[in-house]
Amino acid sequence: LNNSRLSLSEFEHGILKADRMVLAKAITLVESSRADDIALATALMDKISVSAGNSIRIGVTGVPGVGKSTFIEAFGELIIREGKKIAVLTVDPSSQLTKGSILGDKTRMENLSKNPNAFIRPSSSGSVLGGVTGKTREAILLCEAAGFNVIIVETVGVGQSEVAVRNMVDFFLLLMLAGAGDELQGIKKGIMEMADAVVITKADGDNTKRAREAQAEYQHALHLFPVKVSGWNPPVMISSAYEKSGIHEIWNKILQYEAKIKSTGFFDHQRQQQNQVWFLDYFQQLLNADFQNNETLKKITESLSKLVGTSELSAFKAAHDLMKAYHQQIKDR
Amino acid sequence: LNNSRLSLSEFEHGILKADRMVLAKAITLVESSRADDIALATALMDKISVSAGNSIRIGVTGVPGVGKSTFIEAFGELIIREGKKIAVLTVDPSSQLTKGSILGDKTRMENLSKNPNAFIRPSSSGSVLGGVTGKTREAILLCEAAGFNVIIVETVGVGQSEVAVRNMVDFFLLLMLAGAGDELQGIKKGIMEMADAVVITKADGDNTKRAREAQAEYQHALHLFPVKVSGWNPPVMISSAYEKSGIHEIWNKILQYEAKIKSTGFFDHQRQQQNQVWFLDYFQQLLNADFQNNETLKKITESLSKLVGTSELSAFKAAHDLMKAYHQQIKDR
Repeated sequence: LNNSRLSLSEFEHGILKADRMVLAKAITLVESSRADDIALATALMDKISVSAGNSIRIGVTGVPGVGKSTFIEAFGELIIREGKKIAVLTVDPSSQLTKGSILGDKTRMENLSKNPNAFIRPSSSGSVLGGVTGKTREAILLCEAAGFNVIIVETVGVGQSEVAVRNMVDFFLLLMLAGAGDELQGIKKGIMEMADAVVITKADGDNTKRAREAQAEYQHALHLFPVKVSGWNPPVMISSAYEKSGIHEIWNKILQYEAKIKSTGFFDHQRQQQNQVWFLDYFQQLLNADFQNNETLKKITESLSKLVGTSELSAFKAAHDLMKAYHQQIKDR
Repeated sequence: LNNSRLSLSEFEHGILKADRMVLAKAITLVESSRADDIALATALMDKISVSAGNSIRIGVTGVPGVGKSTFIEAFGELIIREGKKIAVLTVDPSSQLTKGSILGDKTRMENLSKNPNAFIRPSSSGSVLGGVTGKTREAILLCEAAGFNVIIVETVGVGQSEVAVRNMVDFFLLLMLAGAGDELQGIKKGIMEMADAVVITKADGDNTKRAREAQAEYQHALHLFPVKVSGWNPPVMISSAYEKSGIHEIWNKILQYEAKIKSTGFFDHQRQQQNQVWFLDYFQQLLNADFQNNETLKKITESLSKLVGTSELSAFKAAHDLMKAYHQQIKDR
């Protein structure tokens, strides 16, 4: 397999054979905003869609320092021993803009990444215009088609990405530290409401007692939230990735949740709703690509931008002018 | 002034007279994505643009709990005593999606908000498609036209919003806590690179010594970053909003920075570059509004969404179908 462009059938068969190199290339393909790549990616997604979907999709979030990587590594190793195949996708809304410096350069999940039953991929958030989640959903389907049956979508930071990720997973796991200040807990309220489980991390050594106290506190806090549409009662658990404690219990909870929402029909219902959100997001991406791939519009954009840069034209007027040019382009096609 | 729609000239004159009610309504107007509101907002922005720009725009960021509100309140009170008028705009990328619960319901900056020379406005991030920053830049210009000559843009959370806010301010201030863990500091590296000054907050009582140590540490860390295009050497300072210490020094640094970059021409250069970014962002918003305000497309979107919801159509195919319908609509106009 060299670096030349793969054909549709090479992509399709490589993925279905679980060829990790092809899978990685396919994710790169769907992340591209080039017109010919979009056409190929769309055809590929269409082909592999029938083989996708057979997984449990788990979102993992928490503030920096909570231990997301170490947790996911311990979790991944456990469920691989149970015969599962795990893919880990990381959504980092900042990476594109700051060229990855926010996550730093350290190698993450080193052991897990060497395991043949694991696939780890930092998911670029696409272009600035591509939105927070970029092509993470496409990456999920590709991993599923390649036979990965546990998909972890890890978020970085606090805010927009959590909401986006909640919209693409079956189960949303919030990691928290014991002993964080009141204000920090208040900030987390909006995210706590989305959680299907809260895990207090680093519950080892001297920290175990504090973790148990935090567990009781958060369990109480969660009782104050409205009942979830899924009917699921989110548990608060404690875990130590260092001592590898609590990990099995979390996995069992997820299996219990999966069984419950599959029996009630909520599993399918939620995925169908998520597909509706996806449809609009994907349309948005097509709209951006439609614009960005047009050479004439690119040139018009550049000359308008120059006029804005020299204060000869306001940003507002330039945007309206560009809109007119875009409409004219479509009419002339 | 009642709740009925204001005319263009009522908006214009109200803003130029510094009528805070009209200013608030004008910000609501520019945040709207209704077609007629966009037309009026565009005309208004065009009118007031000539009166805008005469301010120093300061971005303030930091992790939850660092004390942004108390800092801004102390800072605002100081510069009002110096004869300035201050507007505080808050960019909260999560507020729209979680209905504001992330910021909690507590009243923020209570004293400052009562001051006639202050204007405080949480800036909605607009629709999900509107991007992180929504109409914050329009709000900045409106506040400037109303005579506010110090504009604070406060961000919430870590990640995308900082980069967006850096792109709309003259000076970017990063608040940090003493004694945060190594990992947290690593995470902040991308944001530290954007800072024009770092302030260690809560430098009072027992914490003063730790704050001074952190100051030395961060000052050292900043020296390792590449020299800024502005030629400015970002200082690390310490402050206590509680003891109101260090606030005056920060304001003096900002004045020193302003004088320096105005003398080198970087002030204008940076604002012109920011206008170019704004032009593209604003075009993006027009593109979304163009689509969202079309009744036929709304109906087509709904019926496609239903088919996606019942799994009769994939999200991909539905998005491509919608794209075709959008093009047809433009052609038929």
